[in-house]
Amino acid sequence: MRIRKAVVTAASPSQRRLPLQNLIDRDGRERSVLGILLEEIVQAKIEEICIVICPGDADVYAEVAGDHAGRVRFIEQDQPRGYGHAVWCARDFIGREPFLHLVSDHLHVSRDTRGCAAKIVSLAEAEECAVSAVQATREGLLTQFGAVGGQRVPGDDPLYRIDTVLEKPTPTEAEQKIIVPGLRAGSYLCFFGIHVLTPAVMDLLGEHLARAGDQRISLSSALAELPTRERYLALQLNDRRYDLGARYGLLHAQLALALNGHDRDEILSQLVELLAQRDCPANGSEQ
Amino acid sequence: MRIRKAVVTAASPSQRRLPLQNLIDRDGRERSVLGILLEEIVQAKIEEICIVICPGDADVYAEVAGDHAGRVRFIEQDQPRGYGHAVWCARDFIGREPFLHLVSDHLHVSRDTRGCAAKIVSLAEAEECAVSAVQATREGLLTQFGAVGGQRVPGDDPLYRIDTVLEKPTPTEAEQKIIVPGLRAGSYLCFFGIHVLTPAVMDLLGEHLARAGDQRISLSSALAELPTRERYLALQLNDRRYDLGARYGLLHAQLALALNGHDRDEILSQLVELLAQRDCPANGSEQ
Repeated sequence: MRIRKAVVTAASPSQRRLPLQNLIDRDGRERSVLGILLEEIVQAKIEEICIVICPGDADVYAEVAGDHAGRVRFIEQDQPRGYGHAVWCARDFIGREPFLHLVSDHLHVSRDTRGCAAKIVSLAEAEECAVSAVQATREGLLTQFGAVGGQRVPGDDPLYRIDTVLEKPTPTEAEQKIIVPGLRAGSYLCFFGIHVLTPAVMDLLGEHLARAGDQRISLSSALAELPTRERYLALQLNDRRYDLGARYGLLHAQLALALNGHDRDEILSQLVELLAQRDCPANGSEQ
Repeated sequence: MRIRKAVVTAASPSQRRLPLQNLIDRDGRERSVLGILLEEIVQAKIEEICIVICPGDADVYAEVAGDHAGRVRFIEQDQPRGYGHAVWCARDFIGREPFLHLVSDHLHVSRDTRGCAAKIVSLAEAEECAVSAVQATREGLLTQFGAVGGQRVPGDDPLYRIDTVLEKPTPTEAEQKIIVPGLRAGSYLCFFGIHVLTPAVMDLLGEHLARAGDQRISLSSALAELPTRERYLALQLNDRRYDLGARYGLLHAQLALALNGHDRDEILSQLVELLAQRDCPANGSEQ
């Protein structure tokens, strides 16, 4: 199985400006959030990328896409029918191929030299099935994420065969349905924002949409049904994801990139100076 | 003299995306840079605002303008003929009135309850002449700013009558031409990015453009000639300006806003956590 295509969802009305934000990456290069995401996708050897957008956003997105704008096409989500519907909007682009899927409101920072998306893509190609990246997440954060339950697959990788998917479960629900042996108590496997999905997911989304009438549909509801149709794995990553849509999410991501990148010293001295200013405003008038 | 109009320049090709960036203001509200600037302008009791943009940027700017979009009109700078030309593009909007002028790549943070622009506008209205906000700036930073020389006006305010304007002077040039008595040695009065300008400035810009042929013109060259035609004052502010176009300028501004605003404690704990992560990555896998 070879994965050549990617779908990025960026149509949520409240978050459509996030991909336009500028950050300085760990390598010290200033880029748009969209440019950083596209770089990660291209590193996973993806050839064609579809971005699902709010109607009218194509021009401004194309402008900030940077070096990889040539690989990108845009599809407008014409009705606000939820995250699942946004993915489904790319069905003609995808055809009957498996595809990489990323959300546009998270940045993923790998701890090693391989990108997070590249790890998921190469595992999915080797295992020939759908794979979601997951991360051990404290119970208190469950309300922010989709979470999975399943059995560990023997081997070196922290790999799980998913049997259950819950969208933003309560702690009680999680305790009853998705405790994963081997994780620290009170920790669960939550989605990391990177998936390789199969045509079966598109089929499920289509069925759910047909049943939903005018209602919004989630991606998780389709993923929850996927294990009944085919093998579906989760790879636990020890990398970091930053939710840019959270309050101070951009600041947090930028600080993390800078403090872990080659400008660490410069940022630390800026910080010290800023902290000093507040304590002593009367002496701070000169630049 | 009553100042009713403002001109914001945002047409520099390298910086046209800055006004689209999102920051969380000191009050904890997330806004675009453009929205924060417009708020500052409206607080100075300005009624109509003209933003000089690159051709094609009106729609995306209008979308991020926030609460004050109704007061804004856009004028495209059709040729890249410099900062002076960008201001001049607003001549029909301005007519024969004095006007407030801000650049779109700086944020200004007042140390007291009055906005920086409001202070300059009310002084200009009282003195009935052009006024530039200035800040004492160390010699080493002269290459980044326009700088002024002049005589202190007796009174409580740190007010100067400008006789000389130099754009990004060398230290030698500054020492010869714009030493201001009373400032600390090696400090000069540099522009803060806020001005109240008069119709005479538009006239001067027009004359400079006519002489320049295809060349770009600066605003400083017109301001340098202004004292030969009319009274031109500088008010020294003890507030802060943040150059968003500088490397890590957005990060610096966001940190300063957050550390001096009502989310200080939240940001400080995020910082401590981030700094701890880097030192101990093996323990950092759980969110």
